Amino acid sequence: MHTTHGTLDIPDIEDIHLAHARIRKYVRQTPSFEDEDLSTALGCRLVCKCENLQRTGSFKLRGASNAVARLREQGIEGPVATHSSGNHGAALALAARLDGREAHVVMPENASAVKVEAVRQHGATVHFCAPGHQDREAGLARLVARGHIPIPPFDHADIIAGQGTAALELWQFRPELDVLVAPVGGGGLIAGSSIATASRGVTVYAAEPAGAADTAASLEQGERVTQWPIDTIADGLRALVGKRNFAVIQAGVKQVLTVDDDEIRQAMMLFWHHTRMLIEPSSAVVIAAIMKHRDLFAAHAVGAIITGGNITPQEWTRLTMQSPSP
Amino acid sequence: MHTTHGTLDIPDIEDIHLAHARIRKYVRQTPSFEDEDLSTALGCRLVCKCENLQRTGSFKLRGASNAVARLREQGIEGPVATHSSGNHGAALALAARLDGREAHVVMPENASAVKVEAVRQHGATVHFCAPGHQDREAGLARLVARGHIPIPPFDHADIIAGQGTAALELWQFRPELDVLVAPVGGGGLIAGSSIATASRGVTVYAAEPAGAADTAASLEQGERVTQWPIDTIADGLRALVGKRNFAVIQAGVKQVLTVDDDEIRQAMMLFWHHTRMLIEPSSAVVIAAIMKHRDLFAAHAVGAIITGGNITPQEWTRLTMQSPSP
Repeated sequence: MHTTHGTLDIPDIEDIHLAHARIRKYVRQTPSFEDEDLSTALGCRLVCKCENLQRTGSFKLRGASNAVARLREQGIEGPVATHSSGNHGAALALAARLDGREAHVVMPENASAVKVEAVRQHGATVHFCAPGHQDREAGLARLVARGHIPIPPFDHADIIAGQGTAALELWQFRPELDVLVAPVGGGGLIAGSSIATASRGVTVYAAEPAGAADTAASLEQGERVTQWPIDTIADGLRALVGKRNFAVIQAGVKQVLTVDDDEIRQAMMLFWHHTRMLIEPSSAVVIAAIMKHRDLFAAHAVGAIITGGNITPQEWTRLTMQSPSP
Repeated sequence: MHTTHGTLDIPDIEDIHLAHARIRKYVRQTPSFEDEDLSTALGCRLVCKCENLQRTGSFKLRGASNAVARLREQGIEGPVATHSSGNHGAALALAARLDGREAHVVMPENASAVKVEAVRQHGATVHFCAPGHQDREAGLARLVARGHIPIPPFDHADIIAGQGTAALELWQFRPELDVLVAPVGGGGLIAGSSIATASRGVTVYAAEPAGAADTAASLEQGERVTQWPIDTIADGLRALVGKRNFAVIQAGVKQVLTVDDDEIRQAMMLFWHHTRMLIEPSSAVVIAAIMKHRDLFAAHAVGAIITGGNITPQEWTRLTMQSPSP
């Protein structure tokens, strides 16, 4: 059952279990992946929940398919719409297609080409807009005015509950893990992960790019920052943290660890070196945070959500070539 | 128990089960991965056994760790040695390190840099030689003369039994699969896979680069070809098929499907497009074979061994940029 936090509806652990049952036929149960040499390099025992191997290449399908399945349960028909830098858009596109409905995605003109292509590949219509947050909201408002059903990317109880299923699965298989790290952008994943692991006594850290560190600043000042000069290669983490998301983070996240873009680049290389997987900068923030804060993680069994792998080999090479040597 | 085929010792299904128990603590149980859109693109139901996510980045650890564990069981101490274009070398390096012994690997001067680095990363000493087969054999002979124990890359009962454990695992999880495709170079994997699935009524195909198609030619003429002008980007499949391997292939493989390098490049791109994983050309031959021979696979449930992911993003980009558009 949803609980309310002030006027906000926020999911609880039961909602996450219900979401997990609801989305089982749409999402992949991704591997819980452990590389001994990567663990040695990071000085802790690390188990990665590989959502980069999820359908659509990111965890976002969990929340999107939960939201669409909830519409179906409630008998609500019609096209869905959202705004997205890419991964939520592709996820909603597929979730809608699997439910037999149209999807429309407002995307910034500077969205990565591979992410635009993925949204179209999964059958959605792309509507480009200027890159600002207001422009994205305005683009979505126009679609909603046409009668499309908005599916927000993170600040929604059904989205948070869906994203929480990744941590739920990881702890079902690896109940011995005692620390969780996940990235924070809008905060859907970290909020869902925090709720999913709260009863297990797990210590939860968020990892955030220094160039989009509104969540760290918000925690510090005790209320949501609503302006931030965004400057980071982690394109999936450029959103400001949502209201519901921030309330959950305040209650359940021990610390937000910030890392700069060079640390992210080095983490992308380290991860490839040991696992042969290419991950997005937005995924590599968790590895960068563990590299930078070894003392926090030493001797712990750490579960990390690897959020997505939607980056071309060319772009991965371009980004990591700009890195100073490790 | 080993059976003999003429004078050759060849493993049977029991040897593969014993190998599986023996190597369990050294190898990863890799994911059996299914992407619905990739299946649609190929016109069959495809389940990939992702040995690209194996420790050392390839299936070769299965055979190498079985061979080293067998030495341990027999009380045989001392350094091990082999020749390898890369993946078997890295696998033997790690298997030896985990068993607390030295490893020496003879590698051709033109071996891929990332593979040379991996052999060293796992603790072995690299000995370079000229790229010809005779030069590799001579380099290994020098090490054996010093008392090192040779661990051949494919033409050995313990190696074949170890490599067969990948198909064994895949069919344990997906008993409904009715077709298997695996690449053939020296033939350790295809021979082990054929033995592992023989009692299940599975149809087995081998996939081979046209520029190293000695196995297809050998089957056609009814005996092993011992000379072949090698010219393919699939660096892991340049070896001539081994004696034991060929005997098993003759008995159990329905057909060897050959593909050219452009077909391999297109398969690398298709696989990335749908799964976000970079695979070596030697792995992509199986996807290329399915693309090229759709009629053979249509309406079947196909298990494919994805053999390795040891390719840099730069090299992957360079190879696929040379491809004609799909």
